[in-house]
Amino acid sequence: MTISSDLEVHRQARATLIDEDRSLRRDRLERASDAEVKADHLVREIRAAEAATIWQQEHPSIPHPFPGMEFLTGREIIVKTRLFAILRKVRIPGMPKGALLHCHLDATVNASVLLKLALKQPALHVRVTERVTSSNVGSVLPEFRALPRNEYSDALGLTDDSYEPSSWVSLTNARKNFNSSLGGPERFDEWVIGAMMINPTEAYKTHNTIKKIWQKFTSTFLVSMGLIRFAPIFPDYIREFLKSSIEDGISYIEARINFLYKHMIGEDGKENVPHREWLVMFDRVLNEVKAEMKEQGRVGEFIGARIIYSTIRFITPEELKWYLEDCIALKKEFPHLIAGFDLVGDENQLKPLIDYIEPLLWFRQRQKEEGVDIPFIFHAGETLGDGSPADNNLYDAILLGTKRIGHGFSLVKHPKLIETCRQKGIALEVCPISNEILRLTSSMPMHPLPILLNYGVPVALCSDDPAVFGNMGLTFDFFQAGVLVASEVTGLSTLGQLARDSLEYSTLEGEEKRRALALWESQWNRFIAGILEEEH
Amino acid sequence: MTISSDLEVHRQARATLIDEDRSLRRDRLERASDAEVKADHLVREIRAAEAATIWQQEHPSIPHPFPGMEFLTGREIIVKTRLFAILRKVRIPGMPKGALLHCHLDATVNASVLLKLALKQPALHVRVTERVTSSNVGSVLPEFRALPRNEYSDALGLTDDSYEPSSWVSLTNARKNFNSSLGGPERFDEWVIGAMMINPTEAYKTHNTIKKIWQKFTSTFLVSMGLIRFAPIFPDYIREFLKSSIEDGISYIEARINFLYKHMIGEDGKENVPHREWLVMFDRVLNEVKAEMKEQGRVGEFIGARIIYSTIRFITPEELKWYLEDCIALKKEFPHLIAGFDLVGDENQLKPLIDYIEPLLWFRQRQKEEGVDIPFIFHAGETLGDGSPADNNLYDAILLGTKRIGHGFSLVKHPKLIETCRQKGIALEVCPISNEILRLTSSMPMHPLPILLNYGVPVALCSDDPAVFGNMGLTFDFFQAGVLVASEVTGLSTLGQLARDSLEYSTLEGEEKRRALALWESQWNRFIAGILEEEH
Repeated sequence: MTISSDLEVHRQARATLIDEDRSLRRDRLERASDAEVKADHLVREIRAAEAATIWQQEHPSIPHPFPGMEFLTGREIIVKTRLFAILRKVRIPGMPKGALLHCHLDATVNASVLLKLALKQPALHVRVTERVTSSNVGSVLPEFRALPRNEYSDALGLTDDSYEPSSWVSLTNARKNFNSSLGGPERFDEWVIGAMMINPTEAYKTHNTIKKIWQKFTSTFLVSMGLIRFAPIFPDYIREFLKSSIEDGISYIEARINFLYKHMIGEDGKENVPHREWLVMFDRVLNEVKAEMKEQGRVGEFIGARIIYSTIRFITPEELKWYLEDCIALKKEFPHLIAGFDLVGDENQLKPLIDYIEPLLWFRQRQKEEGVDIPFIFHAGETLGDGSPADNNLYDAILLGTKRIGHGFSLVKHPKLIETCRQKGIALEVCPISNEILRLTSSMPMHPLPILLNYGVPVALCSDDPAVFGNMGLTFDFFQAGVLVASEVTGLSTLGQLARDSLEYSTLEGEEKRRALALWESQWNRFIAGILEEEH
Repeated sequence: MTISSDLEVHRQARATLIDEDRSLRRDRLERASDAEVKADHLVREIRAAEAATIWQQEHPSIPHPFPGMEFLTGREIIVKTRLFAILRKVRIPGMPKGALLHCHLDATVNASVLLKLALKQPALHVRVTERVTSSNVGSVLPEFRALPRNEYSDALGLTDDSYEPSSWVSLTNARKNFNSSLGGPERFDEWVIGAMMINPTEAYKTHNTIKKIWQKFTSTFLVSMGLIRFAPIFPDYIREFLKSSIEDGISYIEARINFLYKHMIGEDGKENVPHREWLVMFDRVLNEVKAEMKEQGRVGEFIGARIIYSTIRFITPEELKWYLEDCIALKKEFPHLIAGFDLVGDENQLKPLIDYIEPLLWFRQRQKEEGVDIPFIFHAGETLGDGSPADNNLYDAILLGTKRIGHGFSLVKHPKLIETCRQKGIALEVCPISNEILRLTSSMPMHPLPILLNYGVPVALCSDDPAVFGNMGLTFDFFQAGVLVASEVTGLSTLGQLARDSLEYSTLEGEEKRRALALWESQWNRFIAGILEEEH
């Protein structure tokens, strides 16, 4: 055999091997339309060009930029790229992102918008455990709460000498009288918003371990909850969430709502609004938003939203039973709203699924008795652990028949479970930016997403807690996943498959799902045409 | 079906699923001896205890310690742990590490030891491109070279006002006269050693991207090469390398030697020592060390050492042919020394294997003609790229029949290639600390090793460039791999399997390999017994 024939043999074997290696992928470009292939190539060119220009320059506050870098630091470069502009909005409504399948309602509205909503409510008060001063303003956390009319406070403010620790001050007063030496009302806003978000210093310096960043992360919920868990705000909050999602190209939502507290604070300042009222409000706003879209002739842009009933994995198995019964009762009254059940909270610190196995098995029986179907959609494997309880949650979630897996970050370690997910069509709700900020991965190039894609595991990209991370909508997550350091494999067509799969693996069924997919498909084609037109 | 029977069904299904999921692993504890199981449990207890104590405390210079943290920062905690002491030396010679299959000879001897060897050589000179001052001492790099007798310099020193940029100064003078305001001879040593190593600030701050850290990494070789590539030092260097490896429990070595330069500097200061002389020196020292071990009654502790012929992947395909012929000639003269062939250097920046495909295929033919067998042992996939040329090196390496893969960091992305490696027994030379310092992974918990283990890919742990990283021997790499954040899967028995596999997948064959494995096995049993005795 001569060398040239050897060469030819090698080239053919290589092409075959690469093809075999990628044969499980769901985003096979050869199945795409000519226009999509063209747009995909165009976007690869733009990505490569930007990798060599904007991502190579040293920026004053960003010492080592690179595509897929730490989100909180790289965000200001991201928003300047042409790639981002394409994903965000070539023409309204931009890239159709499909469904948002993994987000925690409490962290879905921009913190400054939430604060503005709150400032309209005279019932809302704030307190701190010590008077706010220039030295503690970086660490002391505000606690919010709506008070009954007769408990409204006329105290001056949190920075005032007369402030009595842990006493309530009206939100308006606290803001208006925030000491000017500290920065006045503007500094008040910064302080409150900062307490509801994670900043780059926290993520990458002061809290740069999984355990520490979760402490900060958890604290943001404690702060914002005081504002959100108030009936006069709740509908506006949901409306803002739905509408901003639609503007980002999201057409359908399954949001996790935390039902841990059995009541919300009512207009009267009393803790007396039960779960069913939350759903009544949710339903009403949902219908209003749909009607509004219809009026604007944009009915195809928004299919709807559902709720994944959630509580926190620190309750006892006994306590869980109450929530499971509650979930069934809500499902019976609002069958169109309850999409599934989940347990949330830090898997590394709180109880694993196996601790709840008895009530969870019992739940399945109770559903049969009640004639309802509430799929589990469990968080599992949101961890770097290897055979740890959090990692082992994957076994239990899958054995319990979970419809999808929230995160499943550690799934890539498990040959048998990867195979099961592919074969049974258990999609992963992958949250790239959340994973990075919560320190499971240092940057996108280290993220296991490419492994999942090559193994043909269905994936839906999700934002998780955009209000805390600043990744509002899904554009940032698609961007971070899409750039994967000038991946020669992943491209625009991959993002399309991820968006399509988010609808495919939602709890939508039958005609409803067909319609959602058809609408997405036509938006996608429009998006592709837009790229070819505007970016040629 | 009642709940309790459901519970039982779940428990059994769970045990079966976990077992199936781990069935490909090579380190099945159920196959271990009773003593090994006991020692494994004991070590797990120690690991868990230390994870909760020494790794939880805040250390003044280490803000967020955790097991498997950045090596250069965590090193000082590592060496204080009981776990490290066990791996290092329960009783001489401590844990038998098996073979060291991936290291670059130029970076295997402690930098300060190398400097001491150099200071004994009056021929060695040093120069810099600008006079060394307090402001440039952190950045200016020394260049070393042995000069012919008639070119010896009597210049005062590098910090002297009279220093003429790029002129040679004898090493002794340069050290002796290093300005006392800079710190004198001690500061000189620090400066030189710092130029041959990567420090934590560089790895985790100033050079914290793959591209930048490789620039620093490459510069260390340019500095040390001037000292090592000198015939009067070379044998001492090899001796130091072999002996320090033996002291760490390494019983066999396959070292990559970079043959890019066609000659070494001879005793006469001229570049005139050809490759065959390098091998003569290597062989002589090897025999001396073996004889020494025999004298000490430690013959079983050291089987020997071989060379993986390497050159750098920036040469042209035409130039490569010269090296391939050279490699064949050396193999014919030193069949017991040449173990394989490789191309080294930054895969992300330099030429991929496919660029050399023609000469590499030709090499196989030439070997047949010459009746020699020189396996490829290629670096491949030492990258975060996804479908990039460096990632694609894996396809070419495997198709070219590579015996093992150097690094293969990106292998976990490739379903078909993982399967091929397992089925064909292509072992991965995994270098945990190197990967972390060269920024492929931020810390051990993010390293893909657990994925490889669960997929049953054979792995040998390696140190890569211990002189640059400070991970002398293999103990540090075993430690970092072994702690894998209190992995509930990986344990002492895993480390044993890794050590055993390093011999199993070496180029040793037949009787030689059987002997190596048998010797290892008896050392391992002695090690296990030592743990049970001393750590109960």
